[in-house]
Amino acid sequence: MTAPETESRTVSRPEPNAEPIRVAILGATGKMGRYAVAAVGGAPDLELVAELGSRDPVSAALDAGASHLLDLTVPQVSPDNVAFAVEHGLHAVVGTSGWSAERRETLSGQLAAHPEVGVLIAPNFSVGSVLASAFAAKAARHFPSVEIIEMHHPDKVDAPSGTAVRTAGLIADARQAAGVGASPDATTHDPDGSRGALVDGIRVHAVRLRGLEAHQEVLMGGPGEQLVVRHDAFDRGAYMPGVLLGLRTVASRPGLAYGLDAYLDLD
Amino acid sequence: MTAPETESRTVSRPEPNAEPIRVAILGATGKMGRYAVAAVGGAPDLELVAELGSRDPVSAALDAGASHLLDLTVPQVSPDNVAFAVEHGLHAVVGTSGWSAERRETLSGQLAAHPEVGVLIAPNFSVGSVLASAFAAKAARHFPSVEIIEMHHPDKVDAPSGTAVRTAGLIADARQAAGVGASPDATTHDPDGSRGALVDGIRVHAVRLRGLEAHQEVLMGGPGEQLVVRHDAFDRGAYMPGVLLGLRTVASRPGLAYGLDAYLDLD
Amino acid sequence: MTAPETESRTVSRPEPNAEPIRVAILGATGKMGRYAVAAVGGAPDLELVAELGSRDPVSAALDAGASHLLDLTVPQVSPDNVAFAVEHGLHAVVGTSGWSAERRETLSGQLAAHPEVGVLIAPNFSVGSVLASAFAAKAARHFPSVEIIEMHHPDKVDAPSGTAVRTAGLIADARQAAGVGASPDATTHDPDGSRGALVDGIRVHAVRLRGLEAHQEVLMGGPGEQLVVRHDAFDRGAYMPGVLLGLRTVASRPGLAYGLDAYLDLD
Amino acid sequence: MTAPETESRTVSRPEPNAEPIRVAILGATGKMGRYAVAAVGGAPDLELVAELGSRDPVSAALDAGASHLLDLTVPQVSPDNVAFAVEHGLHAVVGTSGWSAERRETLSGQLAAHPEVGVLIAPNFSVGSVLASAFAAKAARHFPSVEIIEMHHPDKVDAPSGTAVRTAGLIADARQAAGVGASPDATTHDPDGSRGALVDGIRVHAVRLRGLEAHQEVLMGGPGEQLVVRHDAFDRGAYMPGVLLGLRTVASRPGLAYGLDAYLDLD
Repeated sequence: MTAPETESRTVSRPEPNAEPIRVAILGATGKMGRYAVAAVGGAPDLELVAELGSRDPVSAALDAGASHLLDLTVPQVSPDNVAFAVEHGLHAVVGTSGWSAERRETLSGQLAAHPEVGVLIAPNFSVGSVLASAFAAKAARHFPSVEIIEMHHPDKVDAPSGTAVRTAGLIADARQAAGVGASPDATTHDPDGSRGALVDGIRVHAVRLRGLEAHQEVLMGGPGEQLVVRHDAFDRGAYMPGVLLGLRTVASRPGLAYGLDAYLDLD
Repeated sequence: MTAPETESRTVSRPEPNAEPIRVAILGATGKMGRYAVAAVGGAPDLELVAELGSRDPVSAALDAGASHLLDLTVPQVSPDNVAFAVEHGLHAVVGTSGWSAERRETLSGQLAAHPEVGVLIAPNFSVGSVLASAFAAKAARHFPSVEIIEMHHPDKVDAPSGTAVRTAGLIADARQAAGVGASPDATTHDPDGSRGALVDGIRVHAVRLRGLEAHQEVLMGGPGEQLVVRHDAFDRGAYMPGVLLGLRTVASRPGLAYGLDAYLDLD
Repeated sequence: MTAPETESRTVSRPEPNAEPIRVAILGATGKMGRYAVAAVGGAPDLELVAELGSRDPVSAALDAGASHLLDLTVPQVSPDNVAFAVEHGLHAVVGTSGWSAERRETLSGQLAAHPEVGVLIAPNFSVGSVLASAFAAKAARHFPSVEIIEMHHPDKVDAPSGTAVRTAGLIADARQAAGVGASPDATTHDPDGSRGALVDGIRVHAVRLRGLEAHQEVLMGGPGEQLVVRHDAFDRGAYMPGVLLGLRTVASRPGLAYGLDAYLDLD
Repeated sequence: MTAPETESRTVSRPEPNAEPIRVAILGATGKMGRYAVAAVGGAPDLELVAELGSRDPVSAALDAGASHLLDLTVPQVSPDNVAFAVEHGLHAVVGTSGWSAERRETLSGQLAAHPEVGVLIAPNFSVGSVLASAFAAKAARHFPSVEIIEMHHPDKVDAPSGTAVRTAGLIADARQAAGVGASPDATTHDPDGSRGALVDGIRVHAVRLRGLEAHQEVLMGGPGEQLVVRHDAFDRGAYMPGVLLGLRTVASRPGLAYGLDAYLDLD
């Protein structure tokens, strides 16, 4: 959060003549919430109209005159928050986890009755991470070999990371569509499991190291060459450009968008 | 050149029902030429009909029944070779350097009279390297900071590398189109030039290290995050998948293509 | 500062039967100072007896019963602080910059009259960074090629970093002692200075990138191989293990030690 | 093998006034053997007196006037070769695998009767790799977290690599001697084994990627920092400086040395 505002502005700029963006943040007192309060508060084209904690009713967003809801809460309450937003014509950007296919389908149904409202649900708000996964998926069909190494702080309880699982899925789909077979592997002796997990046919290795936050490398190799796409998230500031991009774009994209990819010019 | 053929085949596969590809290699005795002889000779859907050295006339390709010319010669003779190919209806894939804008314009004029002939001129035949540059150009507008580090063997006489200069140009164009300003830099004291070269406004650093061959990293950074795209070419085998892709595709792309990018599904 | 204390304790442990360590921190309100207050306060074998700001007199350390002084102030006042400490029998650990050879000589003279007092002046408190430089110096004579890449946040005003300059010096000394010549370099054409700075005969490249903090890579190469020693400091927490190591060790090392290396078992 | 000889000479130089070194290579027609023939043949202070294949008797080395034997054969015949060398007063440098503790003990017994003869058995002739492992072992006690990632070509049948297993052992010993506990790891959910192998209590990850040869990274982390020691062996040329160092040193080190470390100034 130490970068001069002028820098981030040049990267994700306000659209000219856009309607005013009045943001209510739900979950403003959590870790992500505090970063978001600073980021939205510091953006010249956004107005932070409400910082709501876990005990505040979502209706307070409406009372504060919000046009946009930023939901950074917990899976238990996020669907109700978003349903309320849609019902009242607020655009919503959602960083809360737990939005299963079933929940998203219900939400799409609701949005059909409010065709002017936009909702973005993003499992990962890091623009860099989303770009990295998309690049890996695009490149992986050109190389016989591909493996993923994800590295996180050692307080993380699950392995591999959700981002690594999603990246493996994207890569696997792209390779299958291109008719590329499995990565070559002559291993016959690996008594202790050093070759890691097989996720959708892609090897995934999870490193846990004090000092790290959230990092991922996709290694792709062919005869005589290697292509590496690496993303490092050093702190939650990494997610703020994606949050701002979402808030600035969601009103112009009615309906439900799942994944920040939808808002990046990736194809 | 040690990878089993079955691997490379899965990655760049022959198109079904394609016309036969009978390849004459010019410059077959040079370093790239020897790799190409092995690669073309080992590809099940390509037929190597002529290996021509610097003293052989290009007409020998025609005599051998070639449908495609692979030109890996020198700037002094490459234009005449390609002109001959176009005149006689041979498709051409060209890895020789020195194809200036002026030379390419002359060639385009000639191709207008032979609308069925395709020519690919590729300054870099590494699919991985071309992908890396394209990804960097696509991502760089999302980050305030971007710098390039290229690393090569210490026998190289020019710095920075042509690939780094091209990558810097692509990044600079993409950032300018998106209205992104210069990378932030508070440096006021750098008496010995440690900050490297400024190429189209992008910092480029050239490392020369025994043991390395040809490597490039593009570092992109924003608050709390970094995206790195790295390509390693360990030997000239790295260029063979691109050569094969060119030979397999050129007949279906009449006219002049400059850069392997044109044959990759990048947009 | 988020690591459980039990971890750091296992790494730099209190010595058994050591005299009590009562620490006064000078410059406690600066960036480093705040990290140090947390680190010293959280260490079970250290007692934080005084947090002194820029307006507090150094004598307050004595009044608070300190046995050790941790000086994290500015070059203008650090020599007086340390002189006071030595005069009154306090051991001192100093992270302030500006301790020239001349100043250190004066201090050594003063310490001669107080043979029981220990002082550590450390230009870099990161154990990892000091180890990295020492390893590079030890390895560099075994490789024909060596170059340094340092990477920092773009608010830094000088380039290359002081650590890179010191590392280059250590490497140059070690190579000269072993009779190793200059790194091979055939570059004849580098119009824009991409080859970076020459520091004691070693090429040094400085990258400035938003998102980074303080990072350094030493690349060493020989025919067919490369050795890379990289250190990343993500935040000032990186310096705390070195500060604690200094405080725990200084009383047992009378006289002046310059550089944390002196306290690490490196030879 | 493409580096100018003048470079490698500066790095591992002949000792002045040393006795002449007349080398017989056993296993001269294997992969390592061919590299060794070129390296020994190109070294100004070594004389290559015999290149022996698998069918040549070891006595041919004696007939050729060799003072040193370089054994690059197979585990089945290496002990007999070395026994013959010792018996006849030839110093031996051995790169063949399979020298178990039992075999080495037998050899030591034999050497006791020939106190002027030196033998070096090296499981890894890469100076860089040996340095990397030694540095990792030296540094690992200063960091709460340590993990190893080894990366090899996908034709390798065993995982993890022998070098990774040895490195893990060295690190584990050093950490135990310093009283450092296990790396922190909160993982409770890893259904597919992405956390890799546990070797002597150290996590080891094995990557297999076409294009790579033999690479290893040791990652060490503490609050706010990371230290990475990486070694890349791009081809067997990486082992030649170690072979030459062994041949130049073995006569001055009577008795049995196991591991190239013994000849490097590491402590």
